[in-house]
Amino acid sequence: VEAGDAEAIAAALEPMHPADISDMLEQISAGQRQALVTLYPEGIDGDVLSELEEGVREEVMDALPRQALAEAVRELDTDDVVDIIEDMEDHDQAFILGALESDDRAAVESSLAWPEGSAGRLMQSETVAVPQDWTVGQTIDHLRSAEWLPDQFYHVILVDERHRPTGYATLGRVLAAKRDVLMAAITEDSFRAIIATEEQSEVALMFNKYHLISTPVVDGSGRLVGAITIDDAMIVLDEEHEEDMLRMAGVGDESSLSDGVWDTLRQRFPWLAVNLVSANIAAGVIGMFEGTIALIVALAALMPIVASMGGNAGTQSLTVAVRALATRDLTPSNAGRVVRREIFVGLFNGLAFAVIMGGIAWALYGRDIWLGVVIAAAMVINLVVAALAGVLVPLVLSRLKLDPALASGTFVTTMTDVVGFFSFLGLATLVLV
Amino acid sequence: VEAGDAEAIAAALEPMHPADISDMLEQISAGQRQALVTLYPEGIDGDVLSELEEGVREEVMDALPRQALAEAVRELDTDDVVDIIEDMEDHDQAFILGALESDDRAAVESSLAWPEGSAGRLMQSETVAVPQDWTVGQTIDHLRSAEWLPDQFYHVILVDERHRPTGYATLGRVLAAKRDVLMAAITEDSFRAIIATEEQSEVALMFNKYHLISTPVVDGSGRLVGAITIDDAMIVLDEEHEEDMLRMAGVGDESSLSDGVWDTLRQRFPWLAVNLVSANIAAGVIGMFEGTIALIVALAALMPIVASMGGNAGTQSLTVAVRALATRDLTPSNAGRVVRREIFVGLFNGLAFAVIMGGIAWALYGRDIWLGVVIAAAMVINLVVAALAGVLVPLVLSRLKLDPALASGTFVTTMTDVVGFFSFLGLATLVLV
Repeated sequence: VEAGDAEAIAAALEPMHPADISDMLEQISAGQRQALVTLYPEGIDGDVLSELEEGVREEVMDALPRQALAEAVRELDTDDVVDIIEDMEDHDQAFILGALESDDRAAVESSLAWPEGSAGRLMQSETVAVPQDWTVGQTIDHLRSAEWLPDQFYHVILVDERHRPTGYATLGRVLAAKRDVLMAAITEDSFRAIIATEEQSEVALMFNKYHLISTPVVDGSGRLVGAITIDDAMIVLDEEHEEDMLRMAGVGDESSLSDGVWDTLRQRFPWLAVNLVSANIAAGVIGMFEGTIALIVALAALMPIVASMGGNAGTQSLTVAVRALATRDLTPSNAGRVVRREIFVGLFNGLAFAVIMGGIAWALYGRDIWLGVVIAAAMVINLVVAALAGVLVPLVLSRLKLDPALASGTFVTTMTDVVGFFSFLGLATLVLV
Repeated sequence: VEAGDAEAIAAALEPMHPADISDMLEQISAGQRQALVTLYPEGIDGDVLSELEEGVREEVMDALPRQALAEAVRELDTDDVVDIIEDMEDHDQAFILGALESDDRAAVESSLAWPEGSAGRLMQSETVAVPQDWTVGQTIDHLRSAEWLPDQFYHVILVDERHRPTGYATLGRVLAAKRDVLMAAITEDSFRAIIATEEQSEVALMFNKYHLISTPVVDGSGRLVGAITIDDAMIVLDEEHEEDMLRMAGVGDESSLSDGVWDTLRQRFPWLAVNLVSANIAAGVIGMFEGTIALIVALAALMPIVASMGGNAGTQSLTVAVRALATRDLTPSNAGRVVRREIFVGLFNGLAFAVIMGGIAWALYGRDIWLGVVIAAAMVINLVVAALAGVLVPLVLSRLKLDPALASGTFVTTMTDVVGFFSFLGLATLVLV
């Protein structure tokens, strides 16, 4: 299709959902993308832009004629505009802001005034609010006469005379109520307002926990400044999750599938460098026992087993702990119980694998039974340490207000490598030499 | 508080949100839970039950008097009842079904008839549907006269004479339109119906991708049987995430923080056993080169570095690939490009760390420069293999219709361990001995 036939492209894109167009744009190569955007800029409307992931979006916006770009942005809700321009350079940001109508521009600018990653950046400034003493009939008449309503709204927010939200009613209730019923009589218990400076991740957890659909956002003095809807919260939750997963694996959290070789290298190199240091520490531990290994070479073959079992058991505990911290299931009040459980699990698993591996070592590597005893003892020690490290490292990171996912994988495996090699080779030196 | 003072407990629980009560129940110990439920069964209503995670919920339901349990269940929407009873034993299921009113019972039973993990199990059977030729006024009058409406509904669904959905209108549009406007004139483009047999994970991705709020569910003949709302989709998405994360780490995907020692052991033991086998394979590879190690003991200290760097690089590629498969960003059409990128990244990282580690080995472990050359070459080989394995293993698993997250971590690290040890010790045997 990219043979230059603009009409064929137009016909193909016309019936597609913006999310599908953006998926398609992300999957084709950069060259094809460039060609497509140049041939048929009309296909790239605001919704397509806001669906694109950041790297690809920058490319597409650079390729779009300025006029088409301005039109695309003008049709978006203010929260989507904020999402698009918050990471832009000043120069480009000014162009987009200039393209907006003055109301929208003011809304976008005030949203940008809130800190990055805050609820203020996530909210749409378009809300539907009525005085708290109105009736259902007044509200419906007001909505019917409104020139414009937000694409998305699920509640009518009640505000007092100083524009502070005091409750909200679902549209379903408004529709089902008689006209003379007071709005205040059909409000929901679930009502809670979010302060614009709240972290987006907290907002997402709150939506998930309390099954919220939309919630008003207020400024420091309690005045209504916008609303956050569940679809935005769902996207934040999804991103937070991605971040945790990528961070645990030591991949930059901005990583994406459409990044080029160079970006990918830049994200992954630092973590591999950290791992190189920690691997050299473990090698140093082994180096301390070169004399022992020279006497009993079988130790060299067996030692990675102890380290590997520790690394795996540590990763198990770690993953459960990082996840539980992210969902706020692991708290100071149950941390003691969880740590205790991990110690027991480590101990029992350690004992079980000690017996199995001790038997294997004795059977395969001959020598006297003491080789089996040494590897068994090292296995118990390392699995207990692994279980403990897996839960304590993220707990400590989170106590230090750091992200528990960040590099905790490397921390834990360094610990299990060092303890594994040291306990196994140390015991071997004491017992076998 | 658990000193037996039922009134104090009642006073404390009264103002709490069900989600907070359930969080609290999950965090206290099993003994305290038992005591609390026995002292104050009225505090455990249906909403609290449906918020609880499965293990804890079973405990609480066993402790609740039957009468209180029946009342708690009766007040729930049918989708929540289905969620609670789908994993119960027949005997208990029959009791709960018996406690429901006959309408609800029929709805729950028909929902249970759909396969586990399908959209049919996730939907609520309560929907708001009107004939497609109605006006806004007719619809509002109908809603006002309805005896009962679902807690959650965001659209009015239009159906044809055979009860097949043909479109939907947001409540906001219904409210804002004049009474004589036809419902068909204010429907949304985003309308799409889900077949009840669709997988829940696909439904969740669809909600996320197309920013849906609620969507009608139809049976095989296209008739409306229920609706799924975004809060349920959000929970599924969250569970899918958790499953991926836990599976990659080799932790049973049913794992939860409130599991006891025994359950946790049962979930983790099998994966550690798999790892024991793979670690023994790697040990076997080392064993092949015992003669070489006996001659140059420094190899024993250096070999885990090559393996560890490979394991880390493999985990990086793997995590990105598993995540991209889960979000459907990695597809057959761009798999080739992604694999090519990973090879280049592996090659460049391999070359960089080869130079660094070659230098370190030469400086620290003396001997001739050839030890540095050997570890450098092994590093390049292993990092390329790691990058390839990280993306190919999940791709192959997904092609085989298996979960790409499942045990792929163990697969990849086994491969990098074996290749790391073999290439390093093999090259050392060829070059240094």
